[in-house]
Amino acid sequence: MIENNWPSYHITAWKNWINDPNGLVYYQGKYHVFYQHHPYEHKWGPMHWGHVISDDLYHWEHLPIALYPDENGTCFSGSAIVDHDNVSGLGKDGIAPLLLFYTADLNGESESQCIAYTLDGINFEKYEGNPILEHSEYRDFRDPKVFYYEPDNAWKMIISVFDHIEIFESTNLLDWNLINTFSTESVINGVWECPDLFPLQFNDETYWVLILSVGPKPGEGSTRTQYFIGDFDGKNFTLLESSNSIRFIDSGLDNYAITSFSETEERIMITWAQNGYYAPATPKYGYCGQLSAPRLPFLFEDISGNLSLGFRPVDLPETINSSELKTHSSEGKMYAELSNKPLLIEFGLDSDANFELELYNDSGETLSFSKEGTELILDRSKALGNIDHEAFQEDFFKIHKAEQKLNEPSNYFIFLDSHLLEIYAENGTNVFTSTIYPKSPLDKAKISESTKAKFIELDTFKPAISVENLAKMNLKEDE
Amino acid sequence: MIENNWPSYHITAWKNWINDPNGLVYYQGKYHVFYQHHPYEHKWGPMHWGHVISDDLYHWEHLPIALYPDENGTCFSGSAIVDHDNVSGLGKDGIAPLLLFYTADLNGESESQCIAYTLDGINFEKYEGNPILEHSEYRDFRDPKVFYYEPDNAWKMIISVFDHIEIFESTNLLDWNLINTFSTESVINGVWECPDLFPLQFNDETYWVLILSVGPKPGEGSTRTQYFIGDFDGKNFTLLESSNSIRFIDSGLDNYAITSFSETEERIMITWAQNGYYAPATPKYGYCGQLSAPRLPFLFEDISGNLSLGFRPVDLPETINSSELKTHSSEGKMYAELSNKPLLIEFGLDSDANFELELYNDSGETLSFSKEGTELILDRSKALGNIDHEAFQEDFFKIHKAEQKLNEPSNYFIFLDSHLLEIYAENGTNVFTSTIYPKSPLDKAKISESTKAKFIELDTFKPAISVENLAKMNLKEDE
Repeated sequence: MIENNWPSYHITAWKNWINDPNGLVYYQGKYHVFYQHHPYEHKWGPMHWGHVISDDLYHWEHLPIALYPDENGTCFSGSAIVDHDNVSGLGKDGIAPLLLFYTADLNGESESQCIAYTLDGINFEKYEGNPILEHSEYRDFRDPKVFYYEPDNAWKMIISVFDHIEIFESTNLLDWNLINTFSTESVINGVWECPDLFPLQFNDETYWVLILSVGPKPGEGSTRTQYFIGDFDGKNFTLLESSNSIRFIDSGLDNYAITSFSETEERIMITWAQNGYYAPATPKYGYCGQLSAPRLPFLFEDISGNLSLGFRPVDLPETINSSELKTHSSEGKMYAELSNKPLLIEFGLDSDANFELELYNDSGETLSFSKEGTELILDRSKALGNIDHEAFQEDFFKIHKAEQKLNEPSNYFIFLDSHLLEIYAENGTNVFTSTIYPKSPLDKAKISESTKAKFIELDTFKPAISVENLAKMNLKEDE
Repeated sequence: MIENNWPSYHITAWKNWINDPNGLVYYQGKYHVFYQHHPYEHKWGPMHWGHVISDDLYHWEHLPIALYPDENGTCFSGSAIVDHDNVSGLGKDGIAPLLLFYTADLNGESESQCIAYTLDGINFEKYEGNPILEHSEYRDFRDPKVFYYEPDNAWKMIISVFDHIEIFESTNLLDWNLINTFSTESVINGVWECPDLFPLQFNDETYWVLILSVGPKPGEGSTRTQYFIGDFDGKNFTLLESSNSIRFIDSGLDNYAITSFSETEERIMITWAQNGYYAPATPKYGYCGQLSAPRLPFLFEDISGNLSLGFRPVDLPETINSSELKTHSSEGKMYAELSNKPLLIEFGLDSDANFELELYNDSGETLSFSKEGTELILDRSKALGNIDHEAFQEDFFKIHKAEQKLNEPSNYFIFLDSHLLEIYAENGTNVFTSTIYPKSPLDKAKISESTKAKFIELDTFKPAISVENLAKMNLKEDE
């Protein structure tokens, strides 16, 4: 009777606006995700850090807002690390502190780097020495990503500065020295944001992947996230020659500011699975935007022999009850009836096979995903009846295409949770992250029978906040 | 590191003020409890109906506020029934509606009875024919309790009217006729409120119990809940001669407006386990007051041969992890160290045995419960350091005594959950419900060794609200 308009297994704000995931870290037995958050409106505004925790990366519990704006400014994006050796001196009683590195944005006029810390993962203090880094030249100086670089026994921090990356180093996490910069021309037009830099193995070689999100102005394309593959020696990030080009991590337009966890064995990443341009026009169910499912990046050689970046989703936990839907076949198509629960669609495909998947309803709304020859095509143009935004006057925002990446049989994994569609095509070498806003639920599915697809519905889950934690929110309206 | 200042297994408001439990009902597979609620302040105010649900009566989930004030007034106490035969016509598509009967209080000047209904247990509509009952004579006309009376194939509604009960009858739940009144002199001074009337068996006989809560003015004693045992024939409630006296259901002062569930096989009751006089002075952790654990009323013959009312708690579910604390003994006392989790204390006692239990800390704060001769004594006078209220200038509000009720060995069950203490002494024939507000947690316990008491700590539980339901709240601050 009640529609499931909130995602079950994807992070939203506890209320209103979310954008970049921040400070992903495993700490004291829980996965912590923070997020850029405006608690008061269905649009971007004064940034707070919202906060959720999980045992399994899919069932999320909301916690009180972690960071509120202060005299240094509003709290822009950043990262988190655990200071096991208490080099910062912010630990106490043998408890390793969790440090959040974030950008304080002062009235949109200047940006500095700040630290907040906690000993319990819930209650945060701002570091009294804030800000720890300022920039004399650039206003756009943000999104610190901090990581430990073992060979140097030192912490590194990369910060996006308008059109380049600056690399800093520290041994006490409080005092940082600029050691290098990095830039490349292979970036779309726009301000550089949310860098991440981490090693990945391929064929027993270690490569370093640089993630960069770039925000052009409306009308000049869309915010996108690029990646570069190269080497990092603690000071210099050197691009592979084959990687000095504009390559996006996603063929959809709802993937921005992806970033990775600290303190996990595998490299786990989560992205803002929403496009900020049209996010404020999304239906007002109480939340605005969501993050993606957790994803594991990997390197592979694509059909042309280029070393490339793919993503596969972290396995769903077995604690989620699921049921495979019955299907019936007719004239080469398989049909299933959907009930508006979170939905998985899984199938395998030969590299030269075509298919077409449609999710649709009796009102004529349709979402289609297909492969025609070497092209994968996601068409959401008929699944946007419940959002009114100028973006959707352009096909660019409605129809997304990608060239086939693999020349071998591969698996397709599609996850629809409320308004978010995640497509991990071709073993995850070809990812589409896209939102849909049909007027009515898409309650029917059909797909080429040759796919032998499985349609699996998951029980819904309602992310919650304890009323005790809710009472700890320090909102303006309660003053 | 974080103190457990909110109860784990007792209902509070999701935020701020709670008083009377309302509309207790089992509906569509869940226990529903509504409650008198002022969402904006740590004190009584414009009444809403808050709402929680549970599978087991101990793990509660918060739902959106069910009833908001409207043009008929604020929403005072009442009851709930399920209209299985849809005699009201408020059902739809074969779904039996849940009907809430409540009092609309208009500016404190007049009171009328109203109906709200739901088909999903979450979203409520006010009945368009509201109010369904008004009173020409009395301003105090409230707290409708509705129940089905099988012998008459009719619904009965009892309403407290200043100093008496009025009994109404209906076959369609919408149109009600006054059929009788009931009064007695055996009531403390104050306005009659929150009546309940239900059958209980004793020695294969059916008796009817009338519950009545009475609210004297501050300084004229305390709000208390009385009970009467008698017979009810659908029209007349006739007191047993032995029951025509002032008898309270509780020897503590934090028990008011107890009421029972509809649609359960056993008679299950929950009470407001807080005294409204000093409730606003309780510490401001974000909630103000709580309800009791669910209780099963029963009849028994007391030591003097009088038919009396007792209560035993509904068994705690086995899903709650618990651990029995280690104790050590010295000089006739057993000692245990407490960790501020919900605590059970259980022991058996011969009827002529004395004992003393103390919960205390190193700051000199103590709560004591003892039996001396035939007297049970609860002394919280040294456990009120964190509440400042004029009530506690009087011993009446600090030391509670009761005469022994049984002349046989019996069990004691004590449940401490945050600030609420529930004592079911002598098999529950002697109940003390009392709040305590020490400055520091009472982290030690000692008790007479002869009791062989078990101290059992329960895992804490944090009642929560889904963020989707939270977004459905329609609060002033969001306008």
